Amino acid sequence: MENKNDIKKFEEKQVDSELIFDGKVLHVYKDDIALPDGRPSMREYVKHIGAVCVVPVTREGEVICVKQYRYAIGRLMLEIPAGKLDSRDEDPLEAAKRELREETGAISGKMTYLGIFYSSPAILDEKIHMYLAEELEFGETDFDEDEFIEIVKIPLSELVRMIQAGEVPDGKTQAAVMRTEHLLKNIK
Amino acid sequence: MENKNDIKKFEEKQVDSELIFDGKVLHVYKDDIALPDGRPSMREYVKHIGAVCVVPVTREGEVICVKQYRYAIGRLMLEIPAGKLDSRDEDPLEAAKRELREETGAISGKMTYLGIFYSSPAILDEKIHMYLAEELEFGETDFDEDEFIEIVKIPLSELVRMIQAGEVPDGKTQAAVMRTEHLLKNIK
Repeated sequence: MENKNDIKKFEEKQVDSELIFDGKVLHVYKDDIALPDGRPSMREYVKHIGAVCVVPVTREGEVICVKQYRYAIGRLMLEIPAGKLDSRDEDPLEAAKRELREETGAISGKMTYLGIFYSSPAILDEKIHMYLAEELEFGETDFDEDEFIEIVKIPLSELVRMIQAGEVPDGKTQAAVMRTEHLLKNIK
Repeated sequence: MENKNDIKKFEEKQVDSELIFDGKVLHVYKDDIALPDGRPSMREYVKHIGAVCVVPVTREGEVICVKQYRYAIGRLMLEIPAGKLDSRDEDPLEAAKRELREETGAISGKMTYLGIFYSSPAILDEKIHMYLAEELEFGETDFDEDEFIEIVKIPLSELVRMIQAGEVPDGKTQAAVMRTEHLLKNIK
């Protein structure tokens, strides 16, 4: 899709870039740009270190979810395990294994890469690497000190039903779980 | 899920809130908070007006997608039609009909609500209302003046294959299309 001729028709070019806020997690920019036809415009956006998420499916066909409060939206959310990369260079697979172990205590014998999930590509560069984790063995959980998390196990078919009923508003959970269901069904 | 006893164990309370950047699209905050056990912490987050996205499925079973450059991630992206609300109070259904018409020229005789998609609930309050649009009739497109968009029609089954192969990194497109495929298959 991204051949050179193609992208030229659409590309927006940076004219000037201003770092508005260099936070701990968020890095906010406001850029002057040139549209493909040369006209000036402006883009506000946020840079983020990147993240991973994991759909852990037990041998019994249950998905291990986590329930946690999300301050930015003021809601308790049911989500699959996820977390930020430690650095921009961290191997996403290692990060996924770490988050899985920290949040659920599980070690996976079979990790399947599901690809990238851009959370909100118009305003945020957060790129989430998605994994399916199977063949789970369980040890101790090890939450980050400011994570208050409850583990909830839900049969995959029931979680799909909840998603389809609009009961699971977290975006990455919807995408990764629906893809997992499709993938596992087509293997059987 | 959100009964009172439940949320108390997890809730983070605002201690102080600072508006860091009041942009055109992004409103960036840095808050001091109290964790559920009373310890202090900090949250950086972005407020956004909210958005809609639409999976337009033609009578021939094709999904009408749009290809556009996303400056925040520096990539050309294949996505379903989407756009911001005009105001926090705008009826999401009206916004969805508007974006569908502006970006694809289509008017839908059957809009089905798929519920909410939180893009990145740890850092961003963007809430995307998702719709399936069927029974399409076509008129003129009417792009926003700074949108350079190309329309691409892809059979639903082929789009699902592309998503499963990791070729469609946009999060909302993955979630809404996989949910559409599951919904339409279970109706037939």
